Amino acid sequence: MTIELEPIGIIHSPFTEPKGMPIQPAGAAGVTGTVEVFEAYRDGLADLDGFSHVVLLYCFHLSEGFKLRVTPFMDTVERGLFATRAPKRPNPIGLSIVELDHIEEGILHIRNVDIVDGTPLLDIKPYVPEFDSPHEVRTGWLEGACKAVADRRADERFTQTGNPG
Amino acid sequence: MTIELEPIGIIHSPFTEPKGMPIQPAGAAGVTGTVEVFEAYRDGLADLDGFSHVVLLYCFHLSEGFKLRVTPFMDTVERGLFATRAPKRPNPIGLSIVELDHIEEGILHIRNVDIVDGTPLLDIKPYVPEFDSPHEVRTGWLEGACKAVADRRADERFTQTGNPG
Repeated sequence: MTIELEPIGIIHSPFTEPKGMPIQPAGAAGVTGTVEVFEAYRDGLADLDGFSHVVLLYCFHLSEGFKLRVTPFMDTVERGLFATRAPKRPNPIGLSIVELDHIEEGILHIRNVDIVDGTPLLDIKPYVPEFDSPHEVRTGWLEGACKAVADRRADERFTQTGNPG
Repeated sequence: MTIELEPIGIIHSPFTEPKGMPIQPAGAAGVTGTVEVFEAYRDGLADLDGFSHVVLLYCFHLSEGFKLRVTPFMDTVERGLFATRAPKRPNPIGLSIVELDHIEEGILHIRNVDIVDGTPLLDIKPYVPEFDSPHEVRTGWLEGACKAVADRRADERFTQTGNPG
């Protein structure tokens, strides 16, 4: 079974290469970008401007291949791939929750962008805390490391867009 | 540009058809299910058991086609597709954040499952509030409607798996 997807838009950001990028939206505070939705899909953006945050799903298009064990930026030992947000995944889909400032002529103006310029957009969903924000959360190996994310930047470990945390 | 994905596993739940399903994990409190990760990918599950919640990305495999305006279960008027979580999307990728109970021999035992049995799994990511849980959130047309989600069930409006909210 193969699932075929087509981009519905393109994400633009100040990051022209993965090196030096923030690792997550939390580390990209204030960084602005845009999401250009292709004209054929723009009618589906109605009512989205009432939401302060959106979930972006996109393709890690610079990513090639994957390894099932990786050493994340935020750690010094190897971890299972699915316990990390590394971009080299069997299905290279990236997920970022960004702040939506406004929408103008099919262009979403967004903040806290941790995505490389030119990334193909796959989907936009409204962010809804009642669905997406569970309580009493544990974060395994990331406990403690999270506080450091804001200052961490990507190196060349993954030649790729987006959140490699 | 076409992006080709292959399932890395299968999601099992008590819901054999979309009709009657909870609309979101918030409405699926206590419903248990499993995620069967195919053997080739199981080594990537290391360290995941430290996380209380995981993000599942999956294919809305029962979904066919899409409309850019839909009337969501939680409303009586049409909304832009991207301001809803309806399953019929240009790229039919579903997103659910579920509670991880434990992992045994490549099987994730999960709670709060709002996904139809047999759904193809595309990716697993650790849920990390510092990345995924923004503050000061507005939810547009869904304000107020969210409280009703826990009691709402899917009808035949979308013949499809997962969160049509």
